[in-house]
Amino acid sequence: MSPIAVMLTPEHPEGIEVDPTQPQLLLTDQAATRGDGVFETLLYRHGRLREAEAHLRRLDGSAEALGLVIPPQTRWETAIRLGLGAFLAQTGDDAEATVKLVASRGPEDGPGSFWVFVSPVKRTAATAHGPENGLRVLLLDRGYDSGAADRAPWLLAGAKTLSYAVNMAAQRWAKTHDADDAIFITSDGRVLEGPTSSVLLARRGPDGTVTLLTPELETGILAGTTQAAAFDVAREAGWELGYGPLTPAHLMEADAVWLVSSVRLAAAVTMIDGQPVAADPELHQILVSGLDAQL
Amino acid sequence: MSPIAVMLTPEHPEGIEVDPTQPQLLLTDQAATRGDGVFETLLYRHGRLREAEAHLRRLDGSAEALGLVIPPQTRWETAIRLGLGAFLAQTGDDAEATVKLVASRGPEDGPGSFWVFVSPVKRTAATAHGPENGLRVLLLDRGYDSGAADRAPWLLAGAKTLSYAVNMAAQRWAKTHDADDAIFITSDGRVLEGPTSSVLLARRGPDGTVTLLTPELETGILAGTTQAAAFDVAREAGWELGYGPLTPAHLMEADAVWLVSSVRLAAAVTMIDGQPVAADPELHQILVSGLDAQL
Repeated sequence: MSPIAVMLTPEHPEGIEVDPTQPQLLLTDQAATRGDGVFETLLYRHGRLREAEAHLRRLDGSAEALGLVIPPQTRWETAIRLGLGAFLAQTGDDAEATVKLVASRGPEDGPGSFWVFVSPVKRTAATAHGPENGLRVLLLDRGYDSGAADRAPWLLAGAKTLSYAVNMAAQRWAKTHDADDAIFITSDGRVLEGPTSSVLLARRGPDGTVTLLTPELETGILAGTTQAAAFDVAREAGWELGYGPLTPAHLMEADAVWLVSSVRLAAAVTMIDGQPVAADPELHQILVSGLDAQL
Repeated sequence: MSPIAVMLTPEHPEGIEVDPTQPQLLLTDQAATRGDGVFETLLYRHGRLREAEAHLRRLDGSAEALGLVIPPQTRWETAIRLGLGAFLAQTGDDAEATVKLVASRGPEDGPGSFWVFVSPVKRTAATAHGPENGLRVLLLDRGYDSGAADRAPWLLAGAKTLSYAVNMAAQRWAKTHDADDAIFITSDGRVLEGPTSSVLLARRGPDGTVTLLTPELETGILAGTTQAAAFDVAREAGWELGYGPLTPAHLMEADAVWLVSSVRLAAAVTMIDGQPVAADPELHQILVSGLDAQL
């Protein structure tokens, strides 16, 4: 199961397979020199690419926020098919794969660089944790207040850019401080998102109702594709849905908290800042099996 | 004057010249996929590399903030000599050159990627502006308050990372809004830095004294190598020196304002948010010729 890379070039706008073990990017590519580009990560599972349309739409939105002209969705779709086809030729159609789309501003005075990278799913310690083996999370201040995204569009809040050094640093901070991952909060105490995930919480009402909540997008978080998929599952299950504002207290008082993302799907959070948070195996099972069953 | 690239590899730890017109980076290099690395840009001028020691020290500090192990300074120096030697062989020793050092976390499970890139100096519209032709600048909110850097080390404030998408977006915002560049301010109104520069202002006192001021580092700005060089010039000229906190009002009431950076050196600011700011040709001349004369 070798990774497969497909580049969309001026000569091959529909994609051409390239050798991912050989260098393909110039040293002057602005992806590498300035993190100046956008990306998406998709999961191929059970013979289908999850939420492809939502990911491609978000890629377009991110590119627009950066003033970056990228190939149209049909070209990406063709390149993805080429890459997935080559990958699955090695594995059979029932394999799982991570499909990463990257759009870079490219070298200065040159065209952009665009590629699709298909690779085996890495089941890390943080993948697919249930309540029996959940995530220990730290709340980390993102520095911004909850109004920053709205008043300062140059902060690119809500765009999935290649400039992920802070996201990576937050995860490293968590891992060196007895935790598995992080949840960012604003300087004025609103829950935002994980460095590579969205945050969900569930509440059970006295009348048997279940409510699934996620922070409001207006604080500048990424519109989560898996969060949206989880909301579909919850709607099917008859749960109520809602959007923040959420505070750390809401997390601590919830009946269940998850980090959700495209590859990991739903991972239960069992500890926040060293304090246990409630787990709900029944709700977890509904959410995980619902996400798994989506077509 | 073709650019010259030198990579520091496990096989060639002191650097090997590579072809910068050919791809040298894997698609999985975390410089390109996550902006996960650090950099420095130096100016070679009048037969010498300006502030080499300060730049190499800052590269080390940035790498440390990211938990990134990079080659020791002596290796960088050897690689720089190799690259500059090859560049100057084309041009003669009195040429100017931009020398960029980049340290990336490299591909996952691989060694880091480290390179030196030597290229001709680009005299853009924003280079070496004097008061007669100064910069129009917008004040842009950086989203952070002035305490964020201190309480949240994972924000990597003060590290010069490859994750520059916001810096680039701020400069694009300025250019599409009748300006040449930006100055970031905190959400609580402190002056920080430009997206690719430090901020200086000068005040003349009634007794003939001149004071040169720059924002305090505690707000999480980059320790400017050219700011430090300008302070050396000012000290020589008998000016007083000081560090913020500075507010936009300080800029508007100053006798001169500059953006300083390694390649552009000192560029006078003549307009902020559409309002003229004072220019002082005499002070500008002292600063520019002092920076130019430094050895």
